[in-house]
Amino acid sequence: MNTGESGDIGLTDRASYNHWTELTMRFSDQDPMGHVNNAAYAVYFEVSRVEFFAHFVEAGAPVDTVLARITINFLRETSFPGTLDIGARLTGIGNKSVRSAYGIFRDELCLATAECVSVFFDTRTRRSTLPPASVRTAMQNELARSRTGARAGG
Amino acid sequence: MNTGESGDIGLTDRASYNHWTELTMRFSDQDPMGHVNNAAYAVYFEVSRVEFFAHFVEAGAPVDTVLARITINFLRETSFPGTLDIGARLTGIGNKSVRSAYGIFRDELCLATAECVSVFFDTRTRRSTLPPASVRTAMQNELARSRTGARAGG
Amino acid sequence: MNTGESGDIGLTDRASYNHWTELTMRFSDQDPMGHVNNAAYAVYFEVSRVEFFAHFVEAGAPVDTVLARITINFLRETSFPGTLDIGARLTGIGNKSVRSAYGIFRDELCLATAECVSVFFDTRTRRSTLPPASVRTAMQNELARSRTGARAGG
Amino acid sequence: MNTGESGDIGLTDRASYNHWTELTMRFSDQDPMGHVNNAAYAVYFEVSRVEFFAHFVEAGAPVDTVLARITINFLRETSFPGTLDIGARLTGIGNKSVRSAYGIFRDELCLATAECVSVFFDTRTRRSTLPPASVRTAMQNELARSRTGARAGG
Repeated sequence: MNTGESGDIGLTDRASYNHWTELTMRFSDQDPMGHVNNAAYAVYFEVSRVEFFAHFVEAGAPVDTVLARITINFLRETSFPGTLDIGARLTGIGNKSVRSAYGIFRDELCLATAECVSVFFDTRTRRSTLPPASVRTAMQNELARSRTGARAGG
Repeated sequence: MNTGESGDIGLTDRASYNHWTELTMRFSDQDPMGHVNNAAYAVYFEVSRVEFFAHFVEAGAPVDTVLARITINFLRETSFPGTLDIGARLTGIGNKSVRSAYGIFRDELCLATAECVSVFFDTRTRRSTLPPASVRTAMQNELARSRTGARAGG
Repeated sequence: MNTGESGDIGLTDRASYNHWTELTMRFSDQDPMGHVNNAAYAVYFEVSRVEFFAHFVEAGAPVDTVLARITINFLRETSFPGTLDIGARLTGIGNKSVRSAYGIFRDELCLATAECVSVFFDTRTRRSTLPPASVRTAMQNELARSRTGARAGG
Repeated sequence: MNTGESGDIGLTDRASYNHWTELTMRFSDQDPMGHVNNAAYAVYFEVSRVEFFAHFVEAGAPVDTVLARITINFLRETSFPGTLDIGARLTGIGNKSVRSAYGIFRDELCLATAECVSVFFDTRTRRSTLPPASVRTAMQNELARSRTGARAGG
């Protein structure tokens, strides 16, 4: 089920990520199948994405990001209670968009991965926009750093 | 942002769908950006998927389906209060999996589309499995019917 | 389990309410016990409260209301799919607060009731405040109307 | 806003609790008012209650508990990101029910308290039932212990 977007980055490999978020599951994340519901994973990835992007884009600033596309691959089911680790990395920067990838891990097992396209968004006009130069530079530095990290970890 | 999965099916076109679910938004679907949060869309698509698949797979039967992959394209933001229509159709049947596509509409505007891969799942062993012949036949009939419908609608 | 707050108003009786909201349940409202999770009821009551209060307080106005206390009585379990009706009424007005009551019904059966205390809130200072006179008058008229309605319905 | 149920137990005082759960907030717990939505608190209290009751009632056992009533007092607003501590204690045991109380804390500040009535529930008949003697004894021991603890802490 390779979506072909992230090339040879191993999204199920902890070594692919250099930003981490810890998250506690909740009883009501689970559905009648007795496992964490798929939509809860979308919430988990968002927690990681918001914390990760806070390094580049200031909350409440006139330029924020909105999610334009997400692909989630569900690899293993899990259940409450417990703590999850979510890894994040940038995978590409466009003119008005940025791509990122995520993995949810329970100990060493990868439960799900996500690839996201986020669009820079003017919170006053509510339309897509170019990011400030400072944001673009910070993201380019992070992208360069994560590529080096992936190579070093490979 | 074509994911290339569904060929020339127009997922943003109401005429592409032959199963419909009506859904009321909730205040708490919204986040601090003042619009419906992306994870709420995952919940909306699931409501449609569960109702649509109930035509083929019986709830509580030893063979159910679980979501293996979802791609969501977010096209327009929306906000509470209001009612949404979600269209559903099958797009492919594999050995142990079935593919489906969805569109969320507010009146004539498409807010988001989704493409899903669901895997047939033995609820006792909690592993993927082949579907019963009756389920496969019902899905193949639905797939044939929706292709005809799409052609007629095109 | 009478909380003693609403006197002799029959919160489980459809005739007690004069504002109604219709709401569709969602698959993920349910938990591993196979029924709608208790926290989903808090979401349902909020949908009704926000729609009900929109008659008195304008969204985005400098004075809004925030929930200060809620008591929910859970009477019967229910499950997806289906549609619920939520009845609302005012039960009292204080200096800086307003009390309201709610009932969730599936057809003729009352599934849960709630009693709420909401506080008027200045969205700029984020502190409790007196409501504008127009809001107080509109609420007093509604309260008078609902008392008459309850008597008429009794 | 004393509900009069828990006598002189200080629910806003960390020293009142002897069971603790740590929980991470999520971006989507927040609503358009820019703070954690009230229904998220119902979810938080449930996480604590399920973990607390797991000491007495086994998940999947034929006797479980269901929530019959909850009263939540909202004292202070909060926002993502951050970690919360939830304290829990028993406050009473009836024939077929058990009462418990909770406080949500961010550092030393109490954000909300809850008082709950849970009913013992036969998962096969889906009706209220008497708890097994072992469960009653374990809860009575916990209740005695928490009263001593409260006195010691006072």
